[in-house]
Amino acid sequence: MVQFVGTQHLIDIVASVGIERFYRDLVGHMEQDFRRWPEFEKSPRVASHSRDGVIELMPTSDGETYGLKFVNGHPKNPHDGLQTVTAFGVLADVATGYPVFLSEMTIATALRTAATSALAAKYLARDDSRHMGLIGLGAQAEFQATAFKAVLGIEELTVFDIDAAATQKFLSNMAGAGMTINRARSAEEAVTGVDIITTVTADKTRATILSDNMVGSGVHINALGGDCPGKTELSRSILLRSDIFVEFPEQTRIEGEIQQLEPDHPVTELWRVIAGQTPGRRSREAITLFDSVGFAIEDFAMLRYVRQLATRTGLCCDLDLLAEPEDPKDLFGLLRERQAPDHRLIA
Amino acid sequence: MVQFVGTQHLIDIVASVGIERFYRDLVGHMEQDFRRWPEFEKSPRVASHSRDGVIELMPTSDGETYGLKFVNGHPKNPHDGLQTVTAFGVLADVATGYPVFLSEMTIATALRTAATSALAAKYLARDDSRHMGLIGLGAQAEFQATAFKAVLGIEELTVFDIDAAATQKFLSNMAGAGMTINRARSAEEAVTGVDIITTVTADKTRATILSDNMVGSGVHINALGGDCPGKTELSRSILLRSDIFVEFPEQTRIEGEIQQLEPDHPVTELWRVIAGQTPGRRSREAITLFDSVGFAIEDFAMLRYVRQLATRTGLCCDLDLLAEPEDPKDLFGLLRERQAPDHRLIA
Repeated sequence: MVQFVGTQHLIDIVASVGIERFYRDLVGHMEQDFRRWPEFEKSPRVASHSRDGVIELMPTSDGETYGLKFVNGHPKNPHDGLQTVTAFGVLADVATGYPVFLSEMTIATALRTAATSALAAKYLARDDSRHMGLIGLGAQAEFQATAFKAVLGIEELTVFDIDAAATQKFLSNMAGAGMTINRARSAEEAVTGVDIITTVTADKTRATILSDNMVGSGVHINALGGDCPGKTELSRSILLRSDIFVEFPEQTRIEGEIQQLEPDHPVTELWRVIAGQTPGRRSREAITLFDSVGFAIEDFAMLRYVRQLATRTGLCCDLDLLAEPEDPKDLFGLLRERQAPDHRLIA
Repeated sequence: MVQFVGTQHLIDIVASVGIERFYRDLVGHMEQDFRRWPEFEKSPRVASHSRDGVIELMPTSDGETYGLKFVNGHPKNPHDGLQTVTAFGVLADVATGYPVFLSEMTIATALRTAATSALAAKYLARDDSRHMGLIGLGAQAEFQATAFKAVLGIEELTVFDIDAAATQKFLSNMAGAGMTINRARSAEEAVTGVDIITTVTADKTRATILSDNMVGSGVHINALGGDCPGKTELSRSILLRSDIFVEFPEQTRIEGEIQQLEPDHPVTELWRVIAGQTPGRRSREAITLFDSVGFAIEDFAMLRYVRQLATRTGLCCDLDLLAEPEDPKDLFGLLRERQAPDHRLIA
């Protein structure tokens, strides 16, 4: 049997732990996996593009456990009441090849994306960061806000979205979350005087959510919206002023903000900072930029953590996904037994 | 919700249709998909190799539906009571990227592999073929036997395996199947005078199950065991005497029997024969060889067919794999609702 965590299981698991502790423990699991980054099998995602979006496979393996995420990105989906991104994930045992764990990853991807952002900021933002500007109040926004509160102690948010309904949804979800939230009238106002800027808008275009004069020294930029070819959020001149950190350069150069730069523009792999191989922030004045596109090892850490919690809480069930004949060479016997009396199956 | 077909569902589905009709209908679905082969997105499988085996992803898409199979191959597994091959499959809607169907594919892969063999033989073997030699009586053997009976009208089998227990299992499973079965004392005896030769042994080595002098003119060879780098079953000289048919040449040249030949040795794509673009068998005397390694489009046809049957029979269930918030931008609301009274989740 394969252990299965459905959407409601995952919601219950997060509730049982409490979302802030969930983020902190998840970031701990991610740190472990980022520190041993070279041990993982890594490749750019396997993408199937179509007119309206993309379906991607994100596999990785640490030699003991194999992880896979199936994920789509369809920017028009919300117009039809659907999620832009849905996903599920699988862990398999490398020694036998058997899948052992299957989980919803739509909510899990939202959680891991926010946790990855918070992890990067933990190593790159100024230690005394307390105030974050947040532009783009779609499905990912509250996840970012709560992760930064849990992991970095961000207390104050200044937020902006061109969509008033999205803004209202965000404010309503964040009521009682223990953060001071200011509603800005423009993107510029949202980033004025903040310590961290998070951009997470959704349009599949080369937009300029942040222009050069909006970004002051010492800021950490957490850029999530530049995440596929042709989709960026920052002006090129900001990139040129920033120390840029990425997950997997081969992928980020195609999908991230740095698709706007020369293919040999220097970037630092985030895992090297976390592993202590390379400094992160050079000075209080430096602008650091995490050009986040998401990578398989983050999903691997998430699946590993959710599997532990599912086992500990029992919030999961068994899935009849594996044929288990007594004699491994007698797979056919499973069909034959079903029809033993009259051999209808093979008659 | 995602429609789910587990192992028991699949067993019940096959029983409800009857295995012979199942094979014939499945071959019909495969013929449809082989005829529109150029419409599919095709790529070699995405493999993760380890000491004991391989985990592979086999994606494809016809522009409307995306199909994925996760499958492993671990030759040592049977020593530990496990299947060499386990698998599951997914269909997703290309327009939205949403997964819509998840199915066990361990038994389904065994069925589709046999159906593909029978499909190829239907176009390549002599019309009057009635007698098949079958070498290798592992997990795939009964599937081959029953598929060839259902699709080609094969009435007589002569079988051989070096493993007496596997032979006994095969004979016992095939009792009452309506075929005449002869037990040979050697591989050579198993292929003498037959119309079709099926080789499906499992050792991960360059073996020579069939040597040149064992193969007479007019025979169709259905070679399944050459299916990964370093694993072949036929002597090179048989290949040189045969008209060779393959699924996806880029993949077969790496994994199939033809890894023994020059990379430009002429082969014919099976789909061209099925689509009527190229002749299959040239003469009664020709030796035809289907060098089968398995391809994603076969799994796609299988998943398509199983999904139809699951819907028709109700032998399936709903899987809580997709988060479905009322407002697509309010994914976080699903977590918040769970904890609404005391905001514990975000406190």
